[in-house]
Amino acid sequence: MSVRIGIIGPGGIGRAHIARISDRLARGRVVAVTDIDPAHAQRVAEPIGAAVYPDDAALIDADDVDAVMVTSFGPAHEGSVVRAIEAGKPVFCEKPLAPTAAECLRIMDAEQRGGRRLVQVGFMRRYDAGYREIKATLERGELGAALIVHNRHHNPHSPQTYLEGMSITDTAIHEIDVMRFLLGEEIVSARVDKPKRTTSAFAHLSDPLMLVLRTASDVLIDVEIFVNNTYGYDIKCEVVGERGLIALSDQNATVRTSPTGRGNRIAADYNERFEAAFETELQEWIDSVQAGEIVGPTSWDGYAAAVVCDAGVRSLRAHGSQEFTVDLIEKPAFYA
Amino acid sequence: MSVRIGIIGPGGIGRAHIARISDRLARGRVVAVTDIDPAHAQRVAEPIGAAVYPDDAALIDADDVDAVMVTSFGPAHEGSVVRAIEAGKPVFCEKPLAPTAAECLRIMDAEQRGGRRLVQVGFMRRYDAGYREIKATLERGELGAALIVHNRHHNPHSPQTYLEGMSITDTAIHEIDVMRFLLGEEIVSARVDKPKRTTSAFAHLSDPLMLVLRTASDVLIDVEIFVNNTYGYDIKCEVVGERGLIALSDQNATVRTSPTGRGNRIAADYNERFEAAFETELQEWIDSVQAGEIVGPTSWDGYAAAVVCDAGVRSLRAHGSQEFTVDLIEKPAFYA
Amino acid sequence: MSVRIGIIGPGGIGRAHIARISDRLARGRVVAVTDIDPAHAQRVAEPIGAAVYPDDAALIDADDVDAVMVTSFGPAHEGSVVRAIEAGKPVFCEKPLAPTAAECLRIMDAEQRGGRRLVQVGFMRRYDAGYREIKATLERGELGAALIVHNRHHNPHSPQTYLEGMSITDTAIHEIDVMRFLLGEEIVSARVDKPKRTTSAFAHLSDPLMLVLRTASDVLIDVEIFVNNTYGYDIKCEVVGERGLIALSDQNATVRTSPTGRGNRIAADYNERFEAAFETELQEWIDSVQAGEIVGPTSWDGYAAAVVCDAGVRSLRAHGSQEFTVDLIEKPAFYA
Amino acid sequence: MSVRIGIIGPGGIGRAHIARISDRLARGRVVAVTDIDPAHAQRVAEPIGAAVYPDDAALIDADDVDAVMVTSFGPAHEGSVVRAIEAGKPVFCEKPLAPTAAECLRIMDAEQRGGRRLVQVGFMRRYDAGYREIKATLERGELGAALIVHNRHHNPHSPQTYLEGMSITDTAIHEIDVMRFLLGEEIVSARVDKPKRTTSAFAHLSDPLMLVLRTASDVLIDVEIFVNNTYGYDIKCEVVGERGLIALSDQNATVRTSPTGRGNRIAADYNERFEAAFETELQEWIDSVQAGEIVGPTSWDGYAAAVVCDAGVRSLRAHGSQEFTVDLIEKPAFYA
Repeated sequence: MSVRIGIIGPGGIGRAHIARISDRLARGRVVAVTDIDPAHAQRVAEPIGAAVYPDDAALIDADDVDAVMVTSFGPAHEGSVVRAIEAGKPVFCEKPLAPTAAECLRIMDAEQRGGRRLVQVGFMRRYDAGYREIKATLERGELGAALIVHNRHHNPHSPQTYLEGMSITDTAIHEIDVMRFLLGEEIVSARVDKPKRTTSAFAHLSDPLMLVLRTASDVLIDVEIFVNNTYGYDIKCEVVGERGLIALSDQNATVRTSPTGRGNRIAADYNERFEAAFETELQEWIDSVQAGEIVGPTSWDGYAAAVVCDAGVRSLRAHGSQEFTVDLIEKPAFYA
Repeated sequence: MSVRIGIIGPGGIGRAHIARISDRLARGRVVAVTDIDPAHAQRVAEPIGAAVYPDDAALIDADDVDAVMVTSFGPAHEGSVVRAIEAGKPVFCEKPLAPTAAECLRIMDAEQRGGRRLVQVGFMRRYDAGYREIKATLERGELGAALIVHNRHHNPHSPQTYLEGMSITDTAIHEIDVMRFLLGEEIVSARVDKPKRTTSAFAHLSDPLMLVLRTASDVLIDVEIFVNNTYGYDIKCEVVGERGLIALSDQNATVRTSPTGRGNRIAADYNERFEAAFETELQEWIDSVQAGEIVGPTSWDGYAAAVVCDAGVRSLRAHGSQEFTVDLIEKPAFYA
Repeated sequence: MSVRIGIIGPGGIGRAHIARISDRLARGRVVAVTDIDPAHAQRVAEPIGAAVYPDDAALIDADDVDAVMVTSFGPAHEGSVVRAIEAGKPVFCEKPLAPTAAECLRIMDAEQRGGRRLVQVGFMRRYDAGYREIKATLERGELGAALIVHNRHHNPHSPQTYLEGMSITDTAIHEIDVMRFLLGEEIVSARVDKPKRTTSAFAHLSDPLMLVLRTASDVLIDVEIFVNNTYGYDIKCEVVGERGLIALSDQNATVRTSPTGRGNRIAADYNERFEAAFETELQEWIDSVQAGEIVGPTSWDGYAAAVVCDAGVRSLRAHGSQEFTVDLIEKPAFYA
Repeated sequence: MSVRIGIIGPGGIGRAHIARISDRLARGRVVAVTDIDPAHAQRVAEPIGAAVYPDDAALIDADDVDAVMVTSFGPAHEGSVVRAIEAGKPVFCEKPLAPTAAECLRIMDAEQRGGRRLVQVGFMRRYDAGYREIKATLERGELGAALIVHNRHHNPHSPQTYLEGMSITDTAIHEIDVMRFLLGEEIVSARVDKPKRTTSAFAHLSDPLMLVLRTASDVLIDVEIFVNNTYGYDIKCEVVGERGLIALSDQNATVRTSPTGRGNRIAADYNERFEAAFETELQEWIDSVQAGEIVGPTSWDGYAAAVVCDAGVRSLRAHGSQEFTVDLIEKPAFYA
């Protein structure tokens, strides 16, 4: 039997997920849609034969909805996720789990009260073949301990609606999570260094930025964030270990030679670069729902990322390059 | 509804296909198994809950078998494929379609008599992201006309049972097909050049070989075949066009630095290198069965590859580097 | 006529320079040697037919010495360089010009009193083909303004005599100079971030380190210093510009494929990686001596590097990641 | 003392050699020039203060000419080289040694009569760091025996004066020589395969070509010749050994990232790609002249290349892809 999925707030990423589930993945089916704009919900639901519900509560409570996917606007996440938890239904929530630590904590409280894991957060980098190879290599001990990690997260252009803190809360949040995943420990401080600004960004935005993180065991992490590089979606991750390096490749399938030289293309956007990761993420979620045991990124992961983002944003707004401590609550045994 | 698949002769590749269909692909299910060794069929069928049939005829005729997959020994292909055609059921046949041109022609005759395409041959290279990018680039005209294509097909080791002609009929047959696919035209001649032999192969085998092909429009193709290179499964394809080159990359997800240098791993075998291609191949086949219209490599493609292999093997056995003509029948309109 | 060169303190790098001048370069000849160990001076002088002098003063004053090369221990540099200046002879001084800013200032004073440029400091990175291509690319404006620069300076092992501050004064000093060269502006602050330590270094050494610099126009520079990476001499420089990146390649002449993968070797040491740069550096110096106009890195460059090193060492010794200001004197018009 | 060099027929490559000797190399000086156009000789000689001679004989006989460099038109080589031999003066002759085997044999006869090696042929590939690494790797036995070698020799454009056979006698002659150098054995046959023609070449030229060579021990060599590839000067050499591969890299100093992708430039021409090889070649020649023992490529190398070219041109002009035997005389002990 397929897992019957209800989707709440299908914007760009939600519709991409629907297309994946409908066309390319196994054992899942989108049967229900809701949106604050009912006409939009109708347009999304019709081609896939899904039912339209007036609001998230109605969708969550529908008998034929086995699992819920939340892809709405961040501030709306808490309400839908908590409701799904209370209904005892597995819920996949796109990142961020919620914009503030307080909201994340309330989700965690609800989930712990329910007594079993129901929430998975949409941190898809964990499903990329490259990050997984890096993690496996670290775990085999080939490089000794990880000491430093360099990351790059570039976009060619950002719109005027892309505001200051989003470099961290919207963009670098992916690296914040995947660093916790790769290294298996918490981030304890964050600092932002501001380089010279590009002239290609809107005037309100300090771009590029260097976000510098430190883990509990003192691994030093930097994330070069540049959302107006003009040339492409450029993702890098390089781990400096005691005995060698391992880095993501560009993962291109071909090499071209032309008058401009010999090399590979740069991806245009995250869908091109991470399509395989998105598919693996959703397939593993569907299968875990079917198996009755959620195994992906947890509410705790969503909460920890939110607290690191908070510290980063405080540093971004502070004068100079101040380091801010990441104050996590003690990790509940529930999430161990 | 899932496509219910019966599999005939599940050896190594057959079992790999079953695992793909069962675990990672959508809309397909293996419901029936047969093998010349009934105990083997039983062992394969049991974990997936499939029925065991005494022979290919019984499996093909079973009511709940929607489509047939033939992964038996090459000389057994013709019988099973023709039987499936006569039963009006779609049949996926691993390469080679059949070991001789005569057998392939009988399959084509049966299929044409039936009046609709039912056969797909397992030429999985066509589903690799790299070859597809090369084809798309050629079709967009970015490089002008293709003039020369260089291929490499290496295996680290070959067993004693790997006999002389298999360098062409078992190994280079992949390149023979994918060259026809990339260039959209037939191969008209084949020649084998024998370099100095490696000392790592069994004495009966001339290894490596250079297979040189020519297409109808005079594109010159070489295939470096080396099945005892000792270092890995190494696949290359580089097209020299009028205005530039395009080549397969090694498609690794990471780059490593260690005392032995900086670079990427070489794949261990074809499953590692082409896993994604196998999955795309099978998913597209399942979907085409469901859609009622087979669109993958045809019986004609299987036949054409067999005739090119024949010419290559004749050259391999001839003295010196003789070029042999590829004598295809006129292409039936049915396969246009 | 060849330039007749006297060398003061020929240790490892001094003897390498003698071999370059004698065997591979044009228009120069080493005619005089002195060392605090006269027997060592004798051993170095004999095979090249050079005269031995009892001390630096005698060598500098010798009639047949046209130009002086100082490759002695850093604390001895000031005396020899000032003496050469007072004798009116061009002097090539290996880096550092002198260990402290005060010494460098006294050298500058002497040179300015003399009224013409006589000193060149041995910052050989400026002569590497890769850095020169980066500089030319930046100057052509292809990338827009430089915003961030990432550097890597790794050695496989460091001896027990390699002490804490040397990561900056001995190792990163090359990057400090070449950043000033590439960007054409001064560095105004330095900070050291300490990652988790490797277990491969002697216990007294914090290794690796991240040195973070900022230029007058706010270009952010990082230098990853790791002198016990166990795998090789690994040098990187990558400039992030407003419209693209440019980075040093590994500059290997070949690519190898073996069971460990496909890639290039890592250089064993700085002589292997920078031999061509050393030769260009010395040839250009010899030719500038002959032309009567010294054009390489100046005393000011030596002084500026020393002051940046001071700030870096202060940060290294401070608690946490404190940023220290680089306090340069106003640049004398003489060095404009 | 510098080696005093007289140059005969300074066209493009001759003037490039003069610039190298004058500006960048040690221990050599061009003191004499002659040319069939005396005004041209005058223009070349003046800036370097060299004397002008009315003809090759007068230049060769001049007392202050220690060694001769022949860079004239190929058909003029024999006369000048033999004259230099008879005068007992070392002579560097640009490739080809002479256009026909008969001329090369007469040069060898003259040299053997003289009783000592005086001739070096300008096969500069042997001095490239990449080919030298390949040779050293083969000689260390790391890859086992060489079995196959793939070469690429591309130019972006060729002029209308570039005629049919020149793809071999002018272009591939470099690979013919460097293959003999790398493998340490003679080439015994040559064959030309003609691919589809580019539309970018003049109509009289078959371009690209594949030249296929075989050595005495059966190493199979191919050379992809394409003199109108439109994109750049592209040189490749890849040796397939029993246990791995080694290939020339592009030898670029930097990697760039821009909207067209990430990669390296292709060299514009042979001066850019092989400048270092030219300098090493000439420096080693000058030093060998000074040492009194010529050690570079010999008259025999020039002769052997000419005979291979003959076989290649015969195959190019024959119908189909015929293999022609390379008929060398027995190698005189003098050249052992």
